[in-house]
Amino acid sequence: MIIPEVGIGTDVHAYDASRPCFVAGLEWPDTPGLAGHSDGDVACHAACNALFSATGLGDLGSNFGVDRPEWSGASGPTLLREAAARVRAEGYSIGNVSIQLVGKYPRLGARRVEAEAVLTECLGAPVRISAATTDGLGFTGRGEGLAGTAVALVYRG
Amino acid sequence: MIIPEVGIGTDVHAYDASRPCFVAGLEWPDTPGLAGHSDGDVACHAACNALFSATGLGDLGSNFGVDRPEWSGASGPTLLREAAARVRAEGYSIGNVSIQLVGKYPRLGARRVEAEAVLTECLGAPVRISAATTDGLGFTGRGEGLAGTAVALVYRG
Amino acid sequence: MIIPEVGIGTDVHAYDASRPCFVAGLEWPDTPGLAGHSDGDVACHAACNALFSATGLGDLGSNFGVDRPEWSGASGPTLLREAAARVRAEGYSIGNVSIQLVGKYPRLGARRVEAEAVLTECLGAPVRISAATTDGLGFTGRGEGLAGTAVALVYRG
Repeated sequence: MIIPEVGIGTDVHAYDASRPCFVAGLEWPDTPGLAGHSDGDVACHAACNALFSATGLGDLGSNFGVDRPEWSGASGPTLLREAAARVRAEGYSIGNVSIQLVGKYPRLGARRVEAEAVLTECLGAPVRISAATTDGLGFTGRGEGLAGTAVALVYRG
Repeated sequence: MIIPEVGIGTDVHAYDASRPCFVAGLEWPDTPGLAGHSDGDVACHAACNALFSATGLGDLGSNFGVDRPEWSGASGPTLLREAAARVRAEGYSIGNVSIQLVGKYPRLGARRVEAEAVLTECLGAPVRISAATTDGLGFTGRGEGLAGTAVALVYRG
Repeated sequence: MIIPEVGIGTDVHAYDASRPCFVAGLEWPDTPGLAGHSDGDVACHAACNALFSATGLGDLGSNFGVDRPEWSGASGPTLLREAAARVRAEGYSIGNVSIQLVGKYPRLGARRVEAEAVLTECLGAPVRISAATTDGLGFTGRGEGLAGTAVALVYRG
């Protein structure tokens, strides 16, 4: 009997229009980038958090944080690929990951399939991603930042 | 061996007190409605997004958006029923959907069971819904809008 | 064939620096507490909501709300323990629960493993918890309140 385990993860970064925009493993031209020490790829970071939480491996900070300088500046896809390797090294298989972006930029729609392909390749399991806006409300509605929330399903064996 | 897949979806609409309130498949008298081209039923929209994301079928926009005028103005329950049909046409069975509303209105409590019955009938699988407030904080706490987040579990076969 | 069911739950409380801080089953010295009739343990409350939603048992309010004065003032761990008992009394087994805290305080990192052990003991099934900040954005970024969102996986048998 195989009972999967589920995890949830969130990440938020403020926009910084002086930086290039990397989200969901893609570069988005003519789009405000995200602030932070990393590339600010909230989609990948949320997915990593969901995977670590589903498997009891900690979170983004404990795996890749300031105590782990070798990961400083690593791209979102690089972190997602490493998270997948750590989850599998723990004896888990990955069922799938689903990511919900919330914010004004990037406009995911036209490149959703492309983003899913890149992230699925990183994870070695299906990744689906969608985007929503908040009708002008809150920090996401005012265009101050981008939020990502992911759920992951994993199982032993 | 059946491994399910999980999806997450979110939707947010601002209140528009001049409109009737339709949320979770019910009309709520004496309650501010929600703005938007649709009925603004964030519960149904979040559920559709979660189902589409769990199955790799895109999102609300790619399925029912401006490129698909035949769905313009469709009610939340109509969209949820159609989303369920599309998910099943793809070879998936639906395990269940769980929806979390966040906001001041409607006051779900007294009609939670009724809402769950309506949405369960639309989906052909169990739908559970709950509501939370945010202690006066943020756009949901100030009564500016209503947010819904859903998770869905589906499986092949 | 065992098909699990999934649930999502959220809770938010404003900070009240005059109160002691209880979050994720731990007391956090020198940390602003949370307002409310209860201890404001959003991690436990979100987990309860996710479990109730996964199993169709209602929500925190219908189980422990103002109509149930015997639960007034109960701690987060007490509620989580009781939620687990109710879910099992309904014939469900609990797979796991994953909780995402969002806010400035408490700083979970150094005590994440301790919190997970306490909550896992309450639930009788694995609980994982992580924390994220929102880069200064929104009510969580301004330090006005703490949000928790949980997902739960349960199954019959």
